[in-house]
Amino acid sequence: MKVALMGHGVVGSGVAEILLEKKESLAEKAGSLLELVKILDLRDFPQLSYQELFTKDFSEIESDDSISIVVEAMGGLHPAYEYVKSCLEKGKSVVTSNKELVAEKGAELLAVAKEKNVNFFFEASVGGGIPVIRPMHLCLAANELKTVYGILNGTTNFILTKMIREQMSFEKALSIAQELGYAEKDPTADVEGIDACRKICILASIACKKHIYPKDVYAEGITKITAEDVAYASAAGYVVKLIGQAKLGKEQHQVMVTPALVPVDHQLSGVDDVFNAVLIEGDCTGDVMFYGKGAGKMPTASAVVADVVHAAKMPGTSLSLTWEDSTASVALPLTSCENSFYYRLQGSVKPETVEQLWGEVVWLTRKDQPANEVAFMTACMKEGEAVKAEKQLQDAVILSKIRYLD
Amino acid sequence: MKVALMGHGVVGSGVAEILLEKKESLAEKAGSLLELVKILDLRDFPQLSYQELFTKDFSEIESDDSISIVVEAMGGLHPAYEYVKSCLEKGKSVVTSNKELVAEKGAELLAVAKEKNVNFFFEASVGGGIPVIRPMHLCLAANELKTVYGILNGTTNFILTKMIREQMSFEKALSIAQELGYAEKDPTADVEGIDACRKICILASIACKKHIYPKDVYAEGITKITAEDVAYASAAGYVVKLIGQAKLGKEQHQVMVTPALVPVDHQLSGVDDVFNAVLIEGDCTGDVMFYGKGAGKMPTASAVVADVVHAAKMPGTSLSLTWEDSTASVALPLTSCENSFYYRLQGSVKPETVEQLWGEVVWLTRKDQPANEVAFMTACMKEGEAVKAEKQLQDAVILSKIRYLD
Repeated sequence: MKVALMGHGVVGSGVAEILLEKKESLAEKAGSLLELVKILDLRDFPQLSYQELFTKDFSEIESDDSISIVVEAMGGLHPAYEYVKSCLEKGKSVVTSNKELVAEKGAELLAVAKEKNVNFFFEASVGGGIPVIRPMHLCLAANELKTVYGILNGTTNFILTKMIREQMSFEKALSIAQELGYAEKDPTADVEGIDACRKICILASIACKKHIYPKDVYAEGITKITAEDVAYASAAGYVVKLIGQAKLGKEQHQVMVTPALVPVDHQLSGVDDVFNAVLIEGDCTGDVMFYGKGAGKMPTASAVVADVVHAAKMPGTSLSLTWEDSTASVALPLTSCENSFYYRLQGSVKPETVEQLWGEVVWLTRKDQPANEVAFMTACMKEGEAVKAEKQLQDAVILSKIRYLD
Repeated sequence: MKVALMGHGVVGSGVAEILLEKKESLAEKAGSLLELVKILDLRDFPQLSYQELFTKDFSEIESDDSISIVVEAMGGLHPAYEYVKSCLEKGKSVVTSNKELVAEKGAELLAVAKEKNVNFFFEASVGGGIPVIRPMHLCLAANELKTVYGILNGTTNFILTKMIREQMSFEKALSIAQELGYAEKDPTADVEGIDACRKICILASIACKKHIYPKDVYAEGITKITAEDVAYASAAGYVVKLIGQAKLGKEQHQVMVTPALVPVDHQLSGVDDVFNAVLIEGDCTGDVMFYGKGAGKMPTASAVVADVVHAAKMPGTSLSLTWEDSTASVALPLTSCENSFYYRLQGSVKPETVEQLWGEVVWLTRKDQPANEVAFMTACMKEGEAVKAEKQLQDAVILSKIRYLD
């Protein structure tokens, strides 16, 4: 079975290594030899032992009917989308680790795959090497899924872990993450929640079987989290995590990515450093959790290769999951979403005023708390109502607003 | 697609409920209607709305060629084994939650399934509703698996959690577990590690692709764990868990079930009460963990039904994993297994004597420690060497010996 690879970056080079080095054991598992015959990349790799496989011309893959499985590890939306679509239309199964592609074009590409009776697999797009998508799709098939909560971005989790354990500022923790190679020079996609948003969109789409687009989902990053917030949270028995949430409703679903205070006895609170975890509640199983390293060259590449093996096992079939496209958004508008909130205010604000605006709250304290600062946690309320309360607040400014999990 | 069910006990009745109540959503997922047409049980259920489905005669299932999927939820080895084998031979896919059956007869039944080009699925046999087997088999396919550690029995985990959190004796904790319905009147299979042993045998067989039989695997239960051991462990930063372990070697594999001290910062230490977890180390992914409720009617039944859906999706194929049978045991003999040990001794024993026998150790202390009691932790050593040291011990008796994880 001939395999082509598009993109020889971090993940792509890992895929090539595994396909070449584990040839025998993969052949046994796939039921046929997986032969890597072409690698598309615009760069030259003269030092590689397999440099004869490289091409700069996509048509060499597209038009080669003997290639039945194509791995897309280029990243980005274009030309990945056009290439993947073309491969599927030519009757090739496609495996990708590209979360942006799946989050933006999943419904369309899955429909093409179904039509052509081939597979479009993307296990590596969420949670790197952690099995999440296939277990959700296959093993939880008898469940009605109720909620999905995830720590979906290792970079931000590393930064938050540093901030919590070592009382570090966001800026300092980010610079350490960059030094260690966990954060990119431009860390925007990670720290602003864009990466996590794509992943929760993919998980939510699997859960509700309709495409949930990132543009319809509120995503907030961790750049505004301060050491003071971490201190209040810690004193109250919480840690701060960047949480992707999907609460499944009847017609519309609450999907968002925000920092959240997580109680220390919650399963997600112990997921530290660059680790990821996805906690799924089914009506039959209750909570199940999947945990591991959510990124990195070899974990992600191994998930891609496992998809290749699965596709190779059953040629001429469409085992992929599907979800429908939707013109009307199935994501609940932010103002109608329901959450519980932590606030930190500065100014001369009376407890009665706070409770008048937000209802009953729990007051928090921290070491070295300034006299003109208060912090509290509200009950669960609509996002719109929380904003309404904020607008009526006088004589105080809101320093922080963070959601929390019960 | 016609489905028959054998056994209408706790799990079987859950399977019937899900198949009947979620007909539409399951049909959508399976691509065809899953029609429950026969239920085999020797008991009468006159109060049930679907009592017309019941039969006491296995041949009504066996000889009905229109039935393509059979669920076995009878438990026990006989006649489950004969019935399952006969169904597979007749070209029916079989789904089971019966860990004893899979642990004792897995290799043989998988070979029959492969030969007849049907499926033999048993996701529910390990971890109840937690996806473990299919993710291991499909999603980690590009990994060479190095170790599998699991908390595989909810009953013993509940008992140990009580003993740790409430400083309770084993007997008291067991009686509470029995009151709550978590432990059976005869708790032997759970508390003696027999149930966990079957499960680690299944996981180890998947990992090494050879059948590992329970008879070749050392299994020790939790009946000898005392509140004193829990106290020493706790003071040293450990909790006591019943751990199934499989360390994959080249030819032979270290597979066993024993109580073990687990460091509090280890991922398995926070798995409490009736929860289960399986931690798998692959050469590419590093550690991945699967967590959830490992037993119970609906979690387990939902895993069975998901297997039915998967089997229904691809009729006339054999998607099941396989492992080879082996006449020579591939389980490493106990004396050659390597572990680290905690010992508690009573008597007049000098520190020098202990270190002479066991090598360098770490001494432990606890509150109210009697003058004639010592406890220590050894380095990692062969099981046989530890026993040799024990035999040379004079003037002291061994009160406890528990393995520990680093």
